[in-house]
Amino acid sequence: MEQLWYLLPAVGVALLAFLFAGWLFAWVKKQPQENEKIREVSGLIRKGANVFLNREYKVLAIFAGVAAVLIFLFLPHPVWQGDIWTNAIMAGAYIVGTVFSAFAGKIGIAVATQANSRTAEAAQKGIRPSFLCGFRGGAVMGMAVVGASLLGVALVFWATGMVTEGNTALLGFSFGASSLALFAKAGGGIFTKTADVAADLAGKVELGIPEDDPRNPAVIADNVGDNVGDVAGMGADLFDSNVASMAAALVMGAVLDKSGIGGGNAVATVFVYATIGLLASIIGILTARMGKRGGPTRALNASTYVTTAVFAALTALATWLFDFHWAIWGASAVGLVVGTIVGIVTDYFTDDSKKPVQRTAEASESGPAFTLLSGMSYALVSTLPAMIGIGVSALAAYFLCAPLGGADALLCQEYALFGISMAAVGMLSIVGMIISNDAYGPIVDNARGLAEMGNLGEEVLEITDKLDSAGNTVKAVTKGFAIGAAGLTVIALLGAFLSEVNAAGARLFAAGTLPNFTPINGFDIMNPTVFFGMLVGAAIPAVFSALLMLGVNRNAMRMVAEIRRQFREIVGLKEGKAQPEYDKCIDIATTGALRELIPAGLLAIISTLAVGFIGGVHAIGGFLTGNIVSGLLLALFMSNSGGLWDNAKKYVESGHNGGKGSAAHKAAVIGDTVGDPFKDTAGPSINTQITVVSLVASLMSTVFLTVSLFQ
Amino acid sequence: MEQLWYLLPAVGVALLAFLFAGWLFAWVKKQPQENEKIREVSGLIRKGANVFLNREYKVLAIFAGVAAVLIFLFLPHPVWQGDIWTNAIMAGAYIVGTVFSAFAGKIGIAVATQANSRTAEAAQKGIRPSFLCGFRGGAVMGMAVVGASLLGVALVFWATGMVTEGNTALLGFSFGASSLALFAKAGGGIFTKTADVAADLAGKVELGIPEDDPRNPAVIADNVGDNVGDVAGMGADLFDSNVASMAAALVMGAVLDKSGIGGGNAVATVFVYATIGLLASIIGILTARMGKRGGPTRALNASTYVTTAVFAALTALATWLFDFHWAIWGASAVGLVVGTIVGIVTDYFTDDSKKPVQRTAEASESGPAFTLLSGMSYALVSTLPAMIGIGVSALAAYFLCAPLGGADALLCQEYALFGISMAAVGMLSIVGMIISNDAYGPIVDNARGLAEMGNLGEEVLEITDKLDSAGNTVKAVTKGFAIGAAGLTVIALLGAFLSEVNAAGARLFAAGTLPNFTPINGFDIMNPTVFFGMLVGAAIPAVFSALLMLGVNRNAMRMVAEIRRQFREIVGLKEGKAQPEYDKCIDIATTGALRELIPAGLLAIISTLAVGFIGGVHAIGGFLTGNIVSGLLLALFMSNSGGLWDNAKKYVESGHNGGKGSAAHKAAVIGDTVGDPFKDTAGPSINTQITVVSLVASLMSTVFLTVSLFQ
Repeated sequence: MEQLWYLLPAVGVALLAFLFAGWLFAWVKKQPQENEKIREVSGLIRKGANVFLNREYKVLAIFAGVAAVLIFLFLPHPVWQGDIWTNAIMAGAYIVGTVFSAFAGKIGIAVATQANSRTAEAAQKGIRPSFLCGFRGGAVMGMAVVGASLLGVALVFWATGMVTEGNTALLGFSFGASSLALFAKAGGGIFTKTADVAADLAGKVELGIPEDDPRNPAVIADNVGDNVGDVAGMGADLFDSNVASMAAALVMGAVLDKSGIGGGNAVATVFVYATIGLLASIIGILTARMGKRGGPTRALNASTYVTTAVFAALTALATWLFDFHWAIWGASAVGLVVGTIVGIVTDYFTDDSKKPVQRTAEASESGPAFTLLSGMSYALVSTLPAMIGIGVSALAAYFLCAPLGGADALLCQEYALFGISMAAVGMLSIVGMIISNDAYGPIVDNARGLAEMGNLGEEVLEITDKLDSAGNTVKAVTKGFAIGAAGLTVIALLGAFLSEVNAAGARLFAAGTLPNFTPINGFDIMNPTVFFGMLVGAAIPAVFSALLMLGVNRNAMRMVAEIRRQFREIVGLKEGKAQPEYDKCIDIATTGALRELIPAGLLAIISTLAVGFIGGVHAIGGFLTGNIVSGLLLALFMSNSGGLWDNAKKYVESGHNGGKGSAAHKAAVIGDTVGDPFKDTAGPSINTQITVVSLVASLMSTVFLTVSLFQ
Repeated sequence: MEQLWYLLPAVGVALLAFLFAGWLFAWVKKQPQENEKIREVSGLIRKGANVFLNREYKVLAIFAGVAAVLIFLFLPHPVWQGDIWTNAIMAGAYIVGTVFSAFAGKIGIAVATQANSRTAEAAQKGIRPSFLCGFRGGAVMGMAVVGASLLGVALVFWATGMVTEGNTALLGFSFGASSLALFAKAGGGIFTKTADVAADLAGKVELGIPEDDPRNPAVIADNVGDNVGDVAGMGADLFDSNVASMAAALVMGAVLDKSGIGGGNAVATVFVYATIGLLASIIGILTARMGKRGGPTRALNASTYVTTAVFAALTALATWLFDFHWAIWGASAVGLVVGTIVGIVTDYFTDDSKKPVQRTAEASESGPAFTLLSGMSYALVSTLPAMIGIGVSALAAYFLCAPLGGADALLCQEYALFGISMAAVGMLSIVGMIISNDAYGPIVDNARGLAEMGNLGEEVLEITDKLDSAGNTVKAVTKGFAIGAAGLTVIALLGAFLSEVNAAGARLFAAGTLPNFTPINGFDIMNPTVFFGMLVGAAIPAVFSALLMLGVNRNAMRMVAEIRRQFREIVGLKEGKAQPEYDKCIDIATTGALRELIPAGLLAIISTLAVGFIGGVHAIGGFLTGNIVSGLLLALFMSNSGGLWDNAKKYVESGHNGGKGSAAHKAAVIGDTVGDPFKDTAGPSINTQITVVSLVASLMSTVFLTVSLFQ
């Protein structure tokens, strides 16, 4: 087992991350929690979140069970045609993928629902302790996710002896992570916006009671939603991206190592870099602390930059020590730099000190139509730098790494694709920080609500507002990273799909199933089968996101009806003398979310199968490409427009363009309501949809090669 | 000149179309025009439209002059390196392209601004004569556009002796048409929405005066906008699509004929089919008449179906007579059938008797955010059938026509691409009807306004309202056709680009400029240079449409300021005792439109050049692909959401969900205001942007082959 030299440190650092997460969790729990009312509400939120999670995991268990049986029967090849153990390992890896992701999500929810109340109470002592509590709560999730993904990948890799026996089990593991992410992100996204929208519509608009008012039956569901959507959902999403980027890099790396050229250290490079990424995140989290000067935004960004610097320096050191290829290091450094640039540019379009937000706030004075047109226009423009950034990273990685293949054109392409996947690994090296920042958001958002309900006073609310606003700003930057990395990862997954197709084709040819097979070099745009796939693939993210948004609408209407019923039937509710039935709203959000995500999930999987059975692997190549291109575009558009409208509303609320209660404010609120499902339901779910589709395609490659109408 | 047997009929039928247009024009002018007030206002509209057109053409003349000089100097190859005549013919063809398109636009405006008043007065005699006047007015434009495009293509083809000398001059002609379309469609689109939005904002909202009120200084500009945007702009757009589809088919056809295989009748097929398409449109227009039963919608659709049936039958006859390939006939028939299906499906999403519009109206009861979310969601879903439709046509044309190439793989691909371009020609065979219907819309819309200003009474208004609403419904169907055909055309143009690159490469290699050149078979998605181009190309339509929408916003704000000034400074205006200064508003709309379209136009051209100089022809292949895929998606999304919101508003106004003045109505109006620039400015301009980019790429192929950073 000569791989042990890099697998052991990976497992070791992953375990260190768990230890660190445990220490952070203990630290959070040690923080004082004295206010009775806050403790009670926080308990309700925790209970609600667990209700959702358990129901979700039950549905998922059925789904995963069925999927695992199908995988065992058919993948990577029909079990009666090939080796039973290969299929069993594949199905096992799939289940491990779902379980690891579910575990990380569960931990994240556990800590977030403990940290929210403590963050609220810590705010009584000032902004710095409050910040630390919120951030460390988020970091538990960050460490759990990254630790679980590195550990899982290392274990599956080791157990399947991937380098010698074929590399599909890792894709199975990754598919498990994606399945869970689809449920967690899309389901959580529907849950959170259902509650948010219904609480606002029925509470603020119809009844005129303030936000976070405990009389509103949807108020707990709303707070639960922040946790299940932004903590568990986002965590599962990034677990998925992280695993997919490593899996793609390892699949490509294994092919390179097998070829015997280039020193055979490609797989080692992936593990060493990923291990260093996790280490760098631990260091980054340890340094996160609000100084005397600078607000929480600065503290969050500073720790991100520390992580990137540590990662770049340590990987350079490792490259020198272990004699890795400097070109590969260059590719991952490019990923890191481009990720930062994309993040900064994205920030420009959502920051309230910049033109786009201010112009949108100004346009709001002419009415909501202008808020919307202005916001959408800027968000459409904002896609360009990110798309160029992703393209340039791919191009740079290609030109750096392709020469490693020497005179062999195929090998050059393999190296180029490996380089691209390493750029994604580089971009995602800071994923631990990204998740920490992302989970920090809902914790401080919850804290604000709890401070309100616990009557902690204006001063505390002011502090939690500041922390909350920093969360929004930082989120925009990290979202840029996340989408960029997803883009690079799926390009690499396209390469993995091609490798799979060629491996499967050679196998089927050798077994006599296919009468002839010439390895595919790529997918030619000029081939109408490819083009057909591309057009269909491009429409899928649009329909997918639309189904989720329509689901939110339908579900919110159900909850509004329930809120109206409670105010009608529960005597004394409006006067605050009776308790609303919070769990009814949580139940509606839960049931509805799980029901409404099914059409969208089926669409993604069935369309892939349909295109594959109609047009074969070439159509699928096009399908994945169209899906990636339009998926990135829509994800960027939706995330950025949502962020922009959110901040435009806050900008108006802080006294500009007429301030609170003005016509501009009303218009800005409408923009924010439209933007909510964009940025919290549809936009981020598209990432997951792309990965799911890519993995289904890779896993089904053997089937598509043998059964398809127009091959 | 053995081509004369098909060129002469083409020219003959084109001239017949002009004669027919002349007869229709004379018929329209013969209709009575008695109301003094209507005559006066109609004259103001005509004057305003001509002011815009003349200013636009002046700016365009400068642009076209500069472009022609650059073309002469550099295209198809630097004039000092090659044959001066080739370059001169190219520059000449370009200028002819702009002039022909401008001429058709001018005629369309001339008749539309005569027909509007007569349609209004004819409504006093009933809906049938009024319909006929409006429709025949629109048909003049339809005939002028299709006649000019067929005549122009035939003349340029004949003059440059394309079959033997190289086929770039047709692309030059097509580029001329595209340049004009970019100005006319984007400029007209900005003009019309500027006026519309400003008139509503300052008039209806701020001052509380009704729509089309003569006291509003923007009211004439608003009516002018309908003409310059929907008549001249849409005409130029479809002139462009029609020319591009023929040019692409002829470029591919000429390559096939040169190869000597397949009977050498590919070019003949294109001309014969296009000629029959025009003939079928003439017949369709002659049959358009409202029967005793069925409203105007039925009459419009019936004549469209007559046209398609005549086209299918006559082309089958011609195929049998002249021994053309039945596979090619099949491809064009597939185009026609798929176009119809796409149109019908599109109609589903914008028709007020169907679920999407009704659900959106219902969602409006909960506020404008839900109007928007619901409408956008349905519009996102609506992209799928159209994308599948375009993909299936391409696939069907491929499988029908590729076998014609026999054993030669390259020839098979050529035939497949030729088949795709013929599917586009088939889809566009009814372009004459499409334009007639599209121009009918603004004529009856104007007629409504004129009937209001001329006090023709409630009964007349009811009739013009009915005619107007039929125009909206039919527009949705024809827009589906137009976008579908544009999709197929640009796929064919991608083929033309590839042909150009290979021809240029061979030429440069023979001349010693390129040390080596191997013909390119296609563009491989797995090549990161291609992928880079694809990502950038996909972002361009997003940014392009955003720049136009931001331009509308800015320009509308300028006009609102002017309207406020007039009401402040002109004594007696509000009381109706003084005339407003209509021409000031027309001037602002004109100047602003021409100024605001420049960044968008430059973006399209400069991004193509930048990607070409950076990544060479492979990056451009990807760039065009990404551009097509995301352009189609966005164009469908924007056109359909705009149509859906428009009809949802009308649905509410007709008494549903609370009717006029209700909260749902207010929300629906906001949806409509957002949808206006979507469907009338940004969405339809994307078509033109795609064509411009495709043609620039084809024309620059020689340059990109010799000068590029990462080839």
